[in-house]
Amino acid sequence: MNTLHALACMGAILVAGAFVTAHPDTPKPMPAASPIYGVTLPEGYRQWELIAPALEAAPLNEIRTVLGNRIAVDAYRRGAQPFPDGTVLVKLAWKQQPSTAFASATVPGAATTVQVMVKDSKKYAASGSWGYGRFIDGKPADEAQHRTCYACHEARAKGHDDVFTHYAP
Amino acid sequence: MNTLHALACMGAILVAGAFVTAHPDTPKPMPAASPIYGVTLPEGYRQWELIAPALEAAPLNEIRTVLGNRIAVDAYRRGAQPFPDGTVLVKLAWKQQPSTAFASATVPGAATTVQVMVKDSKKYAASGSWGYGRFIDGKPADEAQHRTCYACHEARAKGHDDVFTHYAP
Repeated sequence: MNTLHALACMGAILVAGAFVTAHPDTPKPMPAASPIYGVTLPEGYRQWELIAPALEAAPLNEIRTVLGNRIAVDAYRRGAQPFPDGTVLVKLAWKQQPSTAFASATVPGAATTVQVMVKDSKKYAASGSWGYGRFIDGKPADEAQHRTCYACHEARAKGHDDVFTHYAP
Repeated sequence: MNTLHALACMGAILVAGAFVTAHPDTPKPMPAASPIYGVTLPEGYRQWELIAPALEAAPLNEIRTVLGNRIAVDAYRRGAQPFPDGTVLVKLAWKQQPSTAFASATVPGAATTVQVMVKDSKKYAASGSWGYGRFIDGKPADEAQHRTCYACHEARAKGHDDVFTHYAP
């Protein structure tokens, strides 16, 4: 964690803390939004449908699963790319951990990041119509990390509307 | 595919075929059920919630994802084991395939098996309250394969109600 990130996290904690003693009618604090894009963790995303799992080799050594909202799932099933506005994809990632029950199996260990893509062709016209959010323990990563999202997706997944993940058959 | 399996598959095709020209009021053919247990592929399971992904090393080289019905998900979230009757878990498996977009990533290739566990403490009293089904291209595997399910689950996952998969955090 670099100093900028640490300060950003401290700021988020202070902002959240300010609401603890607020009047009950005070609106809930806004969830922390990603730099550049203002993307937040979507409510209820853990209940969304499976798009596909994936692995990431060393040094990350992660096992991942991408889930999608209803608009995303429908678009995948229709094979309709570009994805329509309102599409939201969430990638959950965990460290790979050997199964204690089965020597040949690897299972999710500690959660690492949750990454979000939100399609909005007006709001995100400058980044291929997608907004990006990368969260660690529910808090957005720093601006430097978010500067890398679009360039990489655009360079490597342009033929699939900047989306790496395909629907698992 | 052994001869017994081939004959079983042919039988399923012939049975299914018999309904093609049947009267429209004729009930739909029953989905193919697993030997021993009579477990079928549950309707709509691809839309169920994520329990966890997993990997299986060589020689299978698979990437897998376990989904659960509402009863399963609620039991996992409550940490309530043994799982209640009505719990259904489905494990989808695919061959591991290198991502063409990202050298360090591995993604799902061809689908291999879909495996089902159904909790019914009366019907499956002789197998730890679980019925098992293993399906390849939608057709149940042979009886010999189904004879291996319970012994292995019971030997290796007894402390978690014969279920290998834990909820991904």
